Amino acid sequence: MSEWVKIFSPATVSNVGPGFDVLGFAIDQPGDELIILKTNTGKFEIVNETDIGLPLEPEKNVASVAVKAMLTELNAEQGFKIVFTRKIYPGSGIGSSAASSVGAVFGANELMGSPFTRKQMVRFAMEGERIACGSAHADNTAPAMLGGFTLVQSYTPLTICPIPSPENLYCTVVHPEIEVKTADARKILKKDISMRLAITQWGNLAGLIAGLMQSDFELISSSLKDVIVEPVRSILIPKFNDVKQGAMDAGALGCSISGSGPSIFALSNQKEIAEKIAVMMQETFKSINIGSKVFVSKVNPEGVRVMERGE
Amino acid sequence: MSEWVKIFSPATVSNVGPGFDVLGFAIDQPGDELIILKTNTGKFEIVNETDIGLPLEPEKNVASVAVKAMLTELNAEQGFKIVFTRKIYPGSGIGSSAASSVGAVFGANELMGSPFTRKQMVRFAMEGERIACGSAHADNTAPAMLGGFTLVQSYTPLTICPIPSPENLYCTVVHPEIEVKTADARKILKKDISMRLAITQWGNLAGLIAGLMQSDFELISSSLKDVIVEPVRSILIPKFNDVKQGAMDAGALGCSISGSGPSIFALSNQKEIAEKIAVMMQETFKSINIGSKVFVSKVNPEGVRVMERGE
Repeated sequence: MSEWVKIFSPATVSNVGPGFDVLGFAIDQPGDELIILKTNTGKFEIVNETDIGLPLEPEKNVASVAVKAMLTELNAEQGFKIVFTRKIYPGSGIGSSAASSVGAVFGANELMGSPFTRKQMVRFAMEGERIACGSAHADNTAPAMLGGFTLVQSYTPLTICPIPSPENLYCTVVHPEIEVKTADARKILKKDISMRLAITQWGNLAGLIAGLMQSDFELISSSLKDVIVEPVRSILIPKFNDVKQGAMDAGALGCSISGSGPSIFALSNQKEIAEKIAVMMQETFKSINIGSKVFVSKVNPEGVRVMERGE
Repeated sequence: MSEWVKIFSPATVSNVGPGFDVLGFAIDQPGDELIILKTNTGKFEIVNETDIGLPLEPEKNVASVAVKAMLTELNAEQGFKIVFTRKIYPGSGIGSSAASSVGAVFGANELMGSPFTRKQMVRFAMEGERIACGSAHADNTAPAMLGGFTLVQSYTPLTICPIPSPENLYCTVVHPEIEVKTADARKILKKDISMRLAITQWGNLAGLIAGLMQSDFELISSSLKDVIVEPVRSILIPKFNDVKQGAMDAGALGCSISGSGPSIFALSNQKEIAEKIAVMMQETFKSINIGSKVFVSKVNPEGVRVMERGE
């Protein structure tokens, strides 16, 4: 059994147009990188080698909280040192906290002799989400853990369904350097919605699931539309409509807000289109003096993975 | 080219739990049977050989209205005699008007040399629905025409997706002899619904689509739940809760209202279970002196079909 592992844990796009609160997918870049080492202190130690601020107290860090949930289930006492060497920017809407929770749980599970399956580990990673955003969501943790697209069909009991998707599906994500607090993004949503729009939304989500499973790009494109959340939340993101229109003009299958924003994602079926969209996205934000980071990658079919391990 | 055809056009279950207004499937029994003959009068004639009352004026009968919509598109003048020899009871919630529209359009298309595909013909059959229920719905016409499960992903443009489903899927439908007017069933629905319930509903619909496409009976079962429409409409159907509980106890994958009711359907993965449910359903209604008709059949993969043809 290894004594340490280095883990890559991917960023994830949740909501995915019509799939608010239930759908998400993993991407290849960016991601968290963290090294997890067994220690004999019986305690947790967090080391941050990135230039992004992270809580170092084990009871406040999502990674250690998630691993502790696993240890409790195992009824095991084990110390771990968790060293963050690369970190997704927090608050970007691409599952930064989920990547840390998932990465740490996956790594600790490896070091404990793999007592749990990936599906079983989602529940522990969700405990990290609970301290990060106040409730134990799975729409980022599930795809980070399992890869590809995942549907959270229900929370009680927790039912997570991997959704097969076409192989050549590319994602462009732009993270503009503005802050949208998840709490604010939640607050502006209405508690009630019109039945008419809800029917449109679930017709679109059903079409998106069928389109993904049948590799029907036309259906994916006609279904990748959010008539409920995007119209409200997009007002928090300057130039959202221009970015979206530009992505569609460039040939995207669809474009919407990633998670609660401010990141925006677009899906395409060609790498060239995805790269063209990346340039356009960055230029659009630059035109109003907003800096941005942009990532082009395939949908990540595997999810979190071991990069390296050692005695 | 034939001069007449005899058509079987199947009953359909629409809404299907969480798929309100977008999902439907065809069953093997009951169905409409109708003979369509070319005439050289240039006019429509409706003959009713069943003991169910039907409008005989061509402009009021859904079958002739639907065929006329097709002829208009073809820019053709052609007379037809439509003879109904068997009819699904109207107002039962299993797509009686859709079966007639679909059967007539499908038959007339055959007699005209098949200018249209099944998918193309849905639009004409929908014109029959427009006069039957005031709006051109496709959630019964699409599965009657195409067979199996169909999703109406959008109306503008009309996008209909066949959803593959497991082969051994059985449906029990009970039609209690009470009247629920579609208009009333629509009226009691709320115009606004809670976001929380809507999320549950679209998570369930997405799960149902994935479950059907992957032949995952466990997922079908956990997803076949309607938290929005059934709780409201079921109050119009006496003993609904007992019927549903009985079906679930007997091993159904799920049970809900068919269309706008009063029919109730249950899905099972064994014929024996479907038959057991049928007996229970009929007995439950009998216990409160309500007569009922009950049908057990496989999900119909083919949809409307030619039974016979002649010169």
